[in-house]
Amino acid sequence: MSSPLRLGIAGLGTVGVGTVRIVQRQAATLRARTGRDIVISAVSARSRDKDRGVRLGDYAWEEDPVALASRADVDVFVELIGGEDGPAKAAVEAAIAHGKHVVTANKALLAMHGQALAVAAEAAGVSIRFEAAVAGGIPVIKALTEGLAGNEITRVMGVMNGTCNYMLTRMQNDGLAYDEVFAECEKLGYLEADPTLDVGGIDAGHKLAILAGIAFGTKVDFNALTIEGIERITIEDIEQAADMGYRIKLLGVAQMSGRGLEARMTPCLVPDSSPLGQLEGPTNMVVLEGDSVGQIVLRGAGAGEGPTASAVMGDVCDLARGLHIPVFGIPAAELKDTVKSNRETPSAYYIRMELTDKPGALARIASVMGEAGISIDRMRQYAHSSDNAPVLIVTHKTAKDALDAAIRSMPETGVLASEPVAMRIESI
Amino acid sequence: MSSPLRLGIAGLGTVGVGTVRIVQRQAATLRARTGRDIVISAVSARSRDKDRGVRLGDYAWEEDPVALASRADVDVFVELIGGEDGPAKAAVEAAIAHGKHVVTANKALLAMHGQALAVAAEAAGVSIRFEAAVAGGIPVIKALTEGLAGNEITRVMGVMNGTCNYMLTRMQNDGLAYDEVFAECEKLGYLEADPTLDVGGIDAGHKLAILAGIAFGTKVDFNALTIEGIERITIEDIEQAADMGYRIKLLGVAQMSGRGLEARMTPCLVPDSSPLGQLEGPTNMVVLEGDSVGQIVLRGAGAGEGPTASAVMGDVCDLARGLHIPVFGIPAAELKDTVKSNRETPSAYYIRMELTDKPGALARIASVMGEAGISIDRMRQYAHSSDNAPVLIVTHKTAKDALDAAIRSMPETGVLASEPVAMRIESI
Repeated sequence: MSSPLRLGIAGLGTVGVGTVRIVQRQAATLRARTGRDIVISAVSARSRDKDRGVRLGDYAWEEDPVALASRADVDVFVELIGGEDGPAKAAVEAAIAHGKHVVTANKALLAMHGQALAVAAEAAGVSIRFEAAVAGGIPVIKALTEGLAGNEITRVMGVMNGTCNYMLTRMQNDGLAYDEVFAECEKLGYLEADPTLDVGGIDAGHKLAILAGIAFGTKVDFNALTIEGIERITIEDIEQAADMGYRIKLLGVAQMSGRGLEARMTPCLVPDSSPLGQLEGPTNMVVLEGDSVGQIVLRGAGAGEGPTASAVMGDVCDLARGLHIPVFGIPAAELKDTVKSNRETPSAYYIRMELTDKPGALARIASVMGEAGISIDRMRQYAHSSDNAPVLIVTHKTAKDALDAAIRSMPETGVLASEPVAMRIESI
Repeated sequence: MSSPLRLGIAGLGTVGVGTVRIVQRQAATLRARTGRDIVISAVSARSRDKDRGVRLGDYAWEEDPVALASRADVDVFVELIGGEDGPAKAAVEAAIAHGKHVVTANKALLAMHGQALAVAAEAAGVSIRFEAAVAGGIPVIKALTEGLAGNEITRVMGVMNGTCNYMLTRMQNDGLAYDEVFAECEKLGYLEADPTLDVGGIDAGHKLAILAGIAFGTKVDFNALTIEGIERITIEDIEQAADMGYRIKLLGVAQMSGRGLEARMTPCLVPDSSPLGQLEGPTNMVVLEGDSVGQIVLRGAGAGEGPTASAVMGDVCDLARGLHIPVFGIPAAELKDTVKSNRETPSAYYIRMELTDKPGALARIASVMGEAGISIDRMRQYAHSSDNAPVLIVTHKTAKDALDAAIRSMPETGVLASEPVAMRIESI
């Protein structure tokens, strides 16, 4: 039996408490699986007095996470504070400087500072592990860096913000407007303090940036992403997409071509019969595509005490067993700069607009599309009581440039009664 | 850069050739990810002359896989011969005896001799890795032994024989009889030489035995499984189950209770809207449930050159990176004997039968059910042209004993025109 692995846990919110609970409840199982005792030396959080419903009396208490990360009796610093800067970053840097391994659930920290931290960690000979940072309990980082290590990854996709998927599902199933569902989520505490992190696609974008870096061997670069949130999705979009056989998802897609990295976290249409289309509620799903393995789909809870703590402890067990691999799968010094592709892979698109109810209106729009070289798969005009007719178009595969050009020309027809809304139909 | 990791590959069928292709095509990527060159020293197969469409001239050739496994220039013996005994077993034993790590895709070998091989490997200080043995390219062994290492696993389920799922899907979607689809699969080469391995549930049972051992920390014990194939599934079963909102799947379920291990590979009904219900064609799906993580669903190709070779190479990369964990996640000496539960967890059941078209026939069957203490959820009698009326019953949750007793009593009613067929409705 090797010596115990000693944890210092900073941050005792939901995930921190969940991690403490697993260490306590599964002590015998963890020992059997790793050959070592896994123990907690010290913890840290903002308030010492709060009742968290878990025994903490056996552990040293540190006010300052940086002090915790520097303690001689800590082998692994578990960072569950959150936030891309501030105490989380300072404490992780301190841990690395003191030769401690780091386990973190902090996607923002890794998306913004992952490269610098990886360089520092690898120079210090320590690991940073972060399974909990992406898609909660789903072991997707492990699948990508280890299980699929024999593959050239061709595409990564994912629904990775449970709140957004819950909101879209609720709109779809209950015919509610965006604002109603947003208000409900705010009341239920489903949204981050700054809700833009959720509904603006930032949180999910952080996760996609991390996955893209690992998948393609490039430096994690959040700024290379195209991000659009779900704030503009209407119940009409959802209902009309459903009518065409699609679901709207806040979907992350990353792929690499000769032009560079194409990475988007945007609302997309997916076929309603696909695994992504059928994903309801706050569940997460990640799709990994490799040249040998084909398509792998992973589904599970993307947040919450148990699932996220499960991911943290998976990393802790790896460290206890002596697994040390480069932070992002290959040494940080060998990661390439991210070149952002200047063109999106052609795709089918869904376009929604309202037209004035004049003879020939539809024909004028169709001819604008034709002039831009866009071929139309399906076009539907809906019954209407107002003066304006809702119109839906599904195109065949087309270049984004051509689509943008067509949409720019549409006002010239004089028949538009609303600004057209276009969404990509992701082929999956 | 560490020294190269040298492979000896025995068996150059689909998976062996796929593995050679990855080693050749991804040499640079494998080096970046593992920090070492991964090279092939020697190969072995039945026929040396066959054109396999891949360069083999650089590698030493061994007629005998045991000789290959014993070579001084081999660090990892890759066993892709197959079969639970014979050359595969002899060669794996030789590799262990000579201090080589083993990577294998051989589920039968592990299901029947896994415990003895694990004891030998751990005594010799080498690893046996077998991601490719279960669910092809899906990294499920890694998820279970590593990613979810902080969990007490509560249940494992899986559709793990692609041919059976293809057959059931084809029957469902095209209204074909079992025999027609079986003949088609035979012609297309989708079936093992002994088709009972597929349609009898043996192959999928081997995989479930391995998963159950890992999940519950018990010795892999194929004989503790209840196995039933799909040979008796009729198109009527499939259509009537669909009419009730279910799909029929050859589903493996393993769970542990105070009574011991309950492990079945049998045809089951699952809700048509669930991920398992929606799994079509030869794709595999594994569902892992843990006390912290909740439910994780993994989906991907369960067979084929690329996916299986991807799993083999994932294991090879782990060995190259120095990951060595016990064969079944905890040391073989600590694995408990498998105690087979003498009772199945209560469940809803689907029962199909034909009744003679006499007044009161349905009432008599219903009263037999009532006397056995079984409460009926739904009962349906179908329109019929013959003398006999097809009847379907979906029960509420009931003990298997009660169900068996009711079915035993049914002939006494004198209204049965066919033997009742009962299938479990798995709650998922």
